[in-house]
Amino acid sequence: NGLRIAVIPGDGIGQEVVPEGLRVLRAAAKRFSIDITFDMFDFSSWDYFEKHGTMLPSDWKEQIGGHDAIYFGAVGWPEKIADHVSLWGSLLLFRREFDQYVNLRPVKLMPGVPSPLAGRKPGEIDFYVVRENTEGEYSSVGGRMFAGTEREIVMQETVMTRVGVDRILHFAFDFANRTKRKHLTSATKSNGIAITMPYWDERVEEVSKSYPEVAWDKYHIDILTAHFVLNPQRFNVVVASNLFGDILSDLGPACTGTIGIAPSGNINPTGEFPSLFEPVHGSAPDIAGQGIANPVGQIWAGAMMLEHLGYPEAGAAIVRAIEDVLAQPAFRTRDLGGEADTETCGKAIAGVLEAA
Amino acid sequence: NGLRIAVIPGDGIGQEVVPEGLRVLRAAAKRFSIDITFDMFDFSSWDYFEKHGTMLPSDWKEQIGGHDAIYFGAVGWPEKIADHVSLWGSLLLFRREFDQYVNLRPVKLMPGVPSPLAGRKPGEIDFYVVRENTEGEYSSVGGRMFAGTEREIVMQETVMTRVGVDRILHFAFDFANRTKRKHLTSATKSNGIAITMPYWDERVEEVSKSYPEVAWDKYHIDILTAHFVLNPQRFNVVVASNLFGDILSDLGPACTGTIGIAPSGNINPTGEFPSLFEPVHGSAPDIAGQGIANPVGQIWAGAMMLEHLGYPEAGAAIVRAIEDVLAQPAFRTRDLGGEADTETCGKAIAGVLEAA
Ligand SMILES: CC(C)[C@H](C(=O)O)[C@@H](O)C(=O)O
Ligand SMILES: CC(C)[C@H](C(=O)O)[C@@H](O)C(=O)O
Repeated sequence: NGLRIAVIPGDGIGQEVVPEGLRVLRAAAKRFSIDITFDMFDFSSWDYFEKHGTMLPSDWKEQIGGHDAIYFGAVGWPEKIADHVSLWGSLLLFRREFDQYVNLRPVKLMPGVPSPLAGRKPGEIDFYVVRENTEGEYSSVGGRMFAGTEREIVMQETVMTRVGVDRILHFAFDFANRTKRKHLTSATKSNGIAITMPYWDERVEEVSKSYPEVAWDKYHIDILTAHFVLNPQRFNVVVASNLFGDILSDLGPACTGTIGIAPSGNINPTGEFPSLFEPVHGSAPDIAGQGIANPVGQIWAGAMMLEHLGYPEAGAAIVRAIEDVLAQPAFRTRDLGGEADTETCGKAIAGVLEAA
Repeated sequence: NGLRIAVIPGDGIGQEVVPEGLRVLRAAAKRFSIDITFDMFDFSSWDYFEKHGTMLPSDWKEQIGGHDAIYFGAVGWPEKIADHVSLWGSLLLFRREFDQYVNLRPVKLMPGVPSPLAGRKPGEIDFYVVRENTEGEYSSVGGRMFAGTEREIVMQETVMTRVGVDRILHFAFDFANRTKRKHLTSATKSNGIAITMPYWDERVEEVSKSYPEVAWDKYHIDILTAHFVLNPQRFNVVVASNLFGDILSDLGPACTGTIGIAPSGNINPTGEFPSLFEPVHGSAPDIAGQGIANPVGQIWAGAMMLEHLGYPEAGAAIVRAIEDVLAQPAFRTRDLGGEADTETCGKAIAGVLEAA
């Protein structure tokens, strides 16, 4: 009874980086004697959609719901299928149906990765974005009236529930409580979004009482994005609604130069359903098929997955192997100014684990 | 029949920077022989609220609605009055009631202002954010159900209307059409916010047809914030919904290091109502009363106001005077690493205009 992982490479460069992720996971499994089985799935992709007219088979929940985790590449191919069809038909559906209510993303300045910010050193920027992943601004409630006329009106609800807001806040405060700095920042916009956001603030105030050791502050999202650029060293754990978390967890990695290599965990903390681990980057159709994509995000996502599944040492070893390899120009892919291809980079990282 | 300007200093450092703004406007008026009268108003402030229990007198529209423009300082004092009360009771109310449906903000790397981005030179970053300023995510429609219980639900509508979306897009495309680069970028999130944002995209597509000379592209807001940091030179005119525009017009100035000095125009393009010009920064209660606030944002807002009122040369002369003075360390305020106080900086800028 080892680990069973459902692997979904998906679209575009997902097909190229997932094999490297698996290579590294196998190396880590060997080194740390973890028994892992990988089951491959071809759905959640344009190819599957073209054949079947849907993103997923009707029994997708039975097929992957019993696995310990989902290892996901990327989905979407905007020229072939509208984003909201492919995404709401797979990735966003998984998040909701598997109640992966936490999206966790590290923001970390890595060695060998140039940051666009002036004068920042590795170690100086190192925090997490905790994003609510199932409700809020990403609702499916709303519609259009007087369609096609001058009076046309389109409305969409932001929906916040006590259950949904409190559980993400508890996760974030608890997570912050386990860090050294014990600090949390909440993203809000209660001065402009004057119905839902004051509620978010109210619950932060309330939930914070259960974590007296965590110091916290809050910023409106506009000035918070400014602080990501101006004072990124200030942050430890940042908790945010679905939309704000989406923005901050792209902006944070952009500030550390790691947008192409950052990972993302879509976590169901109760363990009732499998959690899903993926790189932050998308399917990148423009460079797909050339074998030049950077596999580090996919590999780092594997590290998060092992950590989540109870193998923190194996996860940490993968992150260290990534840092080792990134420090060597010969193994950097084009996006980082190097010339290595996807496989060369992946093999180098696996090699560090095998050699150790 | 000269210009009549309604002046509202408001709260905190608004009281300190507005006098410097007026000093510079008077100098510009003299030099360019513009006849301007300034009428001062004490409402839209905590002091007024304390005395009257409201942010504005009931006849505020009659008092300032007939002016050619409103020259605004800052409003809000979170320790004394909830943000959503003070803001929705004044600034956001003006935007809506005076149908100031355009919020226009320059993002410009200025000489003497250090940018947090590595290796960027003045002139390299120079674009505008055009923000929808009356509808969208800043609606007042929504509410709370099952309040105070575990089943509590809070909802807020995002409302986009054909009229509201089309007019901001027309403004932005027309504005882009008058620039040298004739390029426009639209901020979206149609992959996640799957009802209102695909509508926004649809209208961009449609409105663009009236401006065949403008090349345009679109980015999801998450990756767009990343590009502001990674590739700011790419942008010329960025058009965005109310919330996305709010975020981008703080992040942009943060990237150029000018968040403390950037201006903002809240414009009613039809001229039916007065437009309002203000600095991007807020009332900054933490440094209020010390005479150390940077007056450049307020002064730059005055330049935008003169340009809007048909005096582009006078506006440009103020911007040049700002650039002259910022290039001299002796006149920089503390936030820019200098030691000048508010008045010294303001007098220096007025001095350039008087000397010319
Ligand atoms: C004060 C606040 C309500 C306002 C906004 O969000 O519009 C401000 O951030 C701005 O951008 O003018
Ligand atoms: C693809 C898109 C719908 C998704 C999101 O907005 O959640 C992505 O940006 C992410 O952050 O995982």
